[in-house]
Amino acid sequence: MVKVSIIGATGYVGAELIRLLYTHSKVEIVAISSNSFKDKYIDEVYENFLGLNLVCGDEESAIEKGDVIFIALPHGFSEEISKKALNSGKIVIDMGADFRLKNEENYKKWYEKEFECKNLHQLSSYGLTELNRERIKSSKLIANPGCYPTCSILGIYPAINEGIINESNIIIDAKSGLTGAGRTLSLSSHYSQCNEDLTAYALGGSHRHIPEIEENLKFYTNKEVKITFSPQLVPMNRGIFATIYGDITKAISLEEIFEVYKKYYEKEKFINIMPLGKYAKVKNVSMSNYCNISLHVDERTNKLIVCSTIDNMIKGAAGQAVQNMNLILGFREDLGLEALSQSF
Amino acid sequence: MVKVSIIGATGYVGAELIRLLYTHSKVEIVAISSNSFKDKYIDEVYENFLGLNLVCGDEESAIEKGDVIFIALPHGFSEEISKKALNSGKIVIDMGADFRLKNEENYKKWYEKEFECKNLHQLSSYGLTELNRERIKSSKLIANPGCYPTCSILGIYPAINEGIINESNIIIDAKSGLTGAGRTLSLSSHYSQCNEDLTAYALGGSHRHIPEIEENLKFYTNKEVKITFSPQLVPMNRGIFATIYGDITKAISLEEIFEVYKKYYEKEKFINIMPLGKYAKVKNVSMSNYCNISLHVDERTNKLIVCSTIDNMIKGAAGQAVQNMNLILGFREDLGLEALSQSF
Amino acid sequence: MVKVSIIGATGYVGAELIRLLYTHSKVEIVAISSNSFKDKYIDEVYENFLGLNLVCGDEESAIEKGDVIFIALPHGFSEEISKKALNSGKIVIDMGADFRLKNEENYKKWYEKEFECKNLHQLSSYGLTELNRERIKSSKLIANPGCYPTCSILGIYPAINEGIINESNIIIDAKSGLTGAGRTLSLSSHYSQCNEDLTAYALGGSHRHIPEIEENLKFYTNKEVKITFSPQLVPMNRGIFATIYGDITKAISLEEIFEVYKKYYEKEKFINIMPLGKYAKVKNVSMSNYCNISLHVDERTNKLIVCSTIDNMIKGAAGQAVQNMNLILGFREDLGLEALSQSF
Amino acid sequence: MVKVSIIGATGYVGAELIRLLYTHSKVEIVAISSNSFKDKYIDEVYENFLGLNLVCGDEESAIEKGDVIFIALPHGFSEEISKKALNSGKIVIDMGADFRLKNEENYKKWYEKEFECKNLHQLSSYGLTELNRERIKSSKLIANPGCYPTCSILGIYPAINEGIINESNIIIDAKSGLTGAGRTLSLSSHYSQCNEDLTAYALGGSHRHIPEIEENLKFYTNKEVKITFSPQLVPMNRGIFATIYGDITKAISLEEIFEVYKKYYEKEKFINIMPLGKYAKVKNVSMSNYCNISLHVDERTNKLIVCSTIDNMIKGAAGQAVQNMNLILGFREDLGLEALSQSF
Repeated sequence: MVKVSIIGATGYVGAELIRLLYTHSKVEIVAISSNSFKDKYIDEVYENFLGLNLVCGDEESAIEKGDVIFIALPHGFSEEISKKALNSGKIVIDMGADFRLKNEENYKKWYEKEFECKNLHQLSSYGLTELNRERIKSSKLIANPGCYPTCSILGIYPAINEGIINESNIIIDAKSGLTGAGRTLSLSSHYSQCNEDLTAYALGGSHRHIPEIEENLKFYTNKEVKITFSPQLVPMNRGIFATIYGDITKAISLEEIFEVYKKYYEKEKFINIMPLGKYAKVKNVSMSNYCNISLHVDERTNKLIVCSTIDNMIKGAAGQAVQNMNLILGFREDLGLEALSQSF
Repeated sequence: MVKVSIIGATGYVGAELIRLLYTHSKVEIVAISSNSFKDKYIDEVYENFLGLNLVCGDEESAIEKGDVIFIALPHGFSEEISKKALNSGKIVIDMGADFRLKNEENYKKWYEKEFECKNLHQLSSYGLTELNRERIKSSKLIANPGCYPTCSILGIYPAINEGIINESNIIIDAKSGLTGAGRTLSLSSHYSQCNEDLTAYALGGSHRHIPEIEENLKFYTNKEVKITFSPQLVPMNRGIFATIYGDITKAISLEEIFEVYKKYYEKEKFINIMPLGKYAKVKNVSMSNYCNISLHVDERTNKLIVCSTIDNMIKGAAGQAVQNMNLILGFREDLGLEALSQSF
Repeated sequence: MVKVSIIGATGYVGAELIRLLYTHSKVEIVAISSNSFKDKYIDEVYENFLGLNLVCGDEESAIEKGDVIFIALPHGFSEEISKKALNSGKIVIDMGADFRLKNEENYKKWYEKEFECKNLHQLSSYGLTELNRERIKSSKLIANPGCYPTCSILGIYPAINEGIINESNIIIDAKSGLTGAGRTLSLSSHYSQCNEDLTAYALGGSHRHIPEIEENLKFYTNKEVKITFSPQLVPMNRGIFATIYGDITKAISLEEIFEVYKKYYEKEKFINIMPLGKYAKVKNVSMSNYCNISLHVDERTNKLIVCSTIDNMIKGAAGQAVQNMNLILGFREDLGLEALSQSF
Repeated sequence: MVKVSIIGATGYVGAELIRLLYTHSKVEIVAISSNSFKDKYIDEVYENFLGLNLVCGDEESAIEKGDVIFIALPHGFSEEISKKALNSGKIVIDMGADFRLKNEENYKKWYEKEFECKNLHQLSSYGLTELNRERIKSSKLIANPGCYPTCSILGIYPAINEGIINESNIIIDAKSGLTGAGRTLSLSSHYSQCNEDLTAYALGGSHRHIPEIEENLKFYTNKEVKITFSPQLVPMNRGIFATIYGDITKAISLEEIFEVYKKYYEKEKFINIMPLGKYAKVKNVSMSNYCNISLHVDERTNKLIVCSTIDNMIKGAAGQAVQNMNLILGFREDLGLEALSQSF
């Protein structure tokens, strides 16, 4: 059994990691840490873990005990921890944003912070498994992608890479369930306020997932991608549904686009291209590591419309982290991630 | 008291009309009709109307008894009924789609049907109160707008009319609550299927509200408007939230756009332009006749993003019908529509 | 127009009062106060009140300006304010718990506090309109009932008063929507935690609504009522549904019990006894001031089962307060409360 | 790999079985049948099964191909099928109600039907794993329990068996999510009707789970159990929460009752007795095979209140069926059922 530690185990991403790793047949959680719940048993924080013998310790000890260190902290705290862990020969999978941007100018602009350990940023690999598998395999430091970027990039990458759409005028209208807002209390995630409501936030080009999407799409396609990104909150727990609009720039039919997508992802267990005429749906990926994608063309306006959907806590966070760990450790990539989504 | 009848009173729009008219101080419901529930008391169909002494009769009698005839039938049934009612000197407010398009070619294309009574189509007025008030006032036949068109047109009209955005490349990403699907049972509105789910439908330029939006926007702006329209279902009962994207075509700041919108709607009780920095939200219009609009600009991509939201059953259907009736009858326009939206 | 003030206007009960009073034709809100949002406009706290010209001032000024003073504060703050207001000749309607118990021993035991102004407690009237109408009419100080007590007492009072059931062994299994938990943030009202969840709280005889129910039922029936009370939270915004169990103590049929209830409430606009075979439902009272009651007998176990349901924010709080105000001011009792519940 | 077949695979229970068995490491689904979707691929019925190579065939062939036959049909169809399957040496796990009652008089009274194959009823074992493990192990025909009975019996059995409460006066107030109503369309499971609603059904001693609970509790405790049972529908997908009330008949403290329960279930992986002061919650069992139980005493009224909760589709149906299959086949009892519940 490979030993894993989770730093920041009491946030939603940490808790989802525990839930997934608990049933993973080749790893065991040997340590967890939490600043907010120091010395508490995990089942005092999450009652669904009743009986799990895990106590929130400190970061030092978590680094020491684990072979793989998952970091599930708010951004800004991972560089120091990663350095320590890597120096001790550990594998680090960071769920935060600290290593997701390679371009330091971008990072400064969007996070108002400089790279502390520049070489770590060079060493790190962006953990979008399906697009970066070879690099991830041989990496010791993974920048696990954000939820919106995972859903958006997987959904639009083939169309951009094949030059089907204009890469500089893409609109991503993304809808997220409330777990995306995490465990921190706020009026905007207070039940009576957000139930039976729907609204947007961070419009006007201000969400930090924008540079993550653009920079990584550029990395994979070598094109200057530019997106308009609108995050919105809908009253459900899990799921992201991205409706992505692109201007079709060449003569190509929906059937041909469908074939392109099928081919791009034909070996990918976790990516389903829905049969033409069917729609991707949140429910069909919820509680699973799948990303479902459906393709639509509006001939009146010559737009490609891609619906891409994931479970934000699994493929958009903890599940993809496990997928990356499996890859690095040489396990079957879907180990611990076999669950199908809910039928209802 | 003015006498009103409702034809097709047992669908969701009919029921919402009853609810609103019940507290209207200057009208009384004298007759309702229903094909599905003939001879039933309305409280056998909707238990919230317990004790209301209204029996579902036939259409003939409903036309005869009322001075104002609301028609809440599926499209395709209103022409004949309207002709009869108008011939008897009644005022007709049709909630269906039969008179919403003036262009017969469009109607044939999208509804696969010809105009039966061509002169009625010429007589009818599109009931988007705020944009068509003068015509409505003197009209005897109102084509009450669809829910998506109400929300979309109110949201984008000033920007198009002022030439702020390119009218031929507008994207409307619209999210609707489940009451939009009506009372008819289907798997897609079965609780366990649509709760905790989100999906799209009718993508690719196939929804019948497209010509309604384009034709009416053209009528008010004299521009050839072209839209990409994506309807989506979200797990809540009421509300439409339209996120509308337009390419800004001239040098104009968000503040200036805000001033334009403020001015366009300054006399409109039911239209709120949210202060800059605030977001329109479904909850802030739910259970009311208001339309809230918030404005956002993405300077990176030079897009105007308008969030427009209404209660689909009120401003998007029964409430606007009452507003139009008030206008025609010379009542205060907000009579029976005073309710503020829910705080939670 | 009668002038009204709301002290504590920014909690959920205060906000609901504003919403209801805004459309009341014979009163105007002249002042509101709030400790948490001093000097803020109400639409900075609740965006659905956009444009309402109400600023959160202090309590002194609210008392001075209004003829009727609504107090919507947590318990423990009303005695002092009420004294001041009454001394200035105002009418006070207290939405908190401070005057709901007449028995000081009970109050001490359950609220760990003594009566400060004993005479006020004697002067005050319990505002359960339908059972205490005559006293309320001539009262200047109303203790507006709690939400659970309103729903429970109205549901079970006729059965106890007529000796149909054993008054000392009554079980009230009550389910409440999340607005019952108010605007204060907590993990138990955090969307992702309580959505798709259901749980109980305060079991074992510890909820402060127990003495309120028992004491008031005793007052109206002259019997020593004893209840087991189980509050539970269900994922919906509004509504209380109380399932009440009593042991039938005499030979009486369901039809006869139904007739008893019909007769007790025959003149009550806001109380519906559902036809036998039908069930009370939250939706059929939601957004209205109604209380719906359905009656069921289990002959196998000789139990009377009463389902009683209200909108916790309206009949269970702000609506009943308005009803009481109407009564005291000599208005039609349903003024401002005419709204029917939602059909969907 | 053991071969299993599912008869009636396209209802909700069948679909949940497919989801669970898909990740079971020691069985494979070799055949499914469906009358409603004959010859369809399962992913045409449930899109979350996209790519699963399972076609809905006929019952004959399903019986022939499988070693274990799950029957997920409405009641009334299992006797004939079970006979055939048992005659061919198969193991049968029936998810319907046909074999749940041993007492033919009870069966006639509640199901208006006689036993067709009396000897099968004698052979069959009630599949409440924790209480009937030894019989199940050696059985070839399992009557898998209903969802309400599983939750209710596990929750109250120790208290009855130990004589802590009066067995003849038990009230079970049970709340269920909407998946309990299955896939069949009806107005009462239409989203806009049941969202933001809560109501009861089948009150007055008419629900068919009553004899199942009473008869089986009698079987395990040898006492004449009598229950008042109130099923209620709450707006969530999964979960049953039963609040069970019993009259305490002897001097015993809550702590002692807690110890009794702990001891009864100390070896049971899937049953959690919540620490005193904590509450069972639907979320803490949802998506898992666990049953969580919390204990509460109201000393004022001398009642024991037990909160018992399960996922109705897993421990209340498909999960328990898998648990029973594991037991019969000699597998680890939790194989395929390792998933922890959701944290959010």
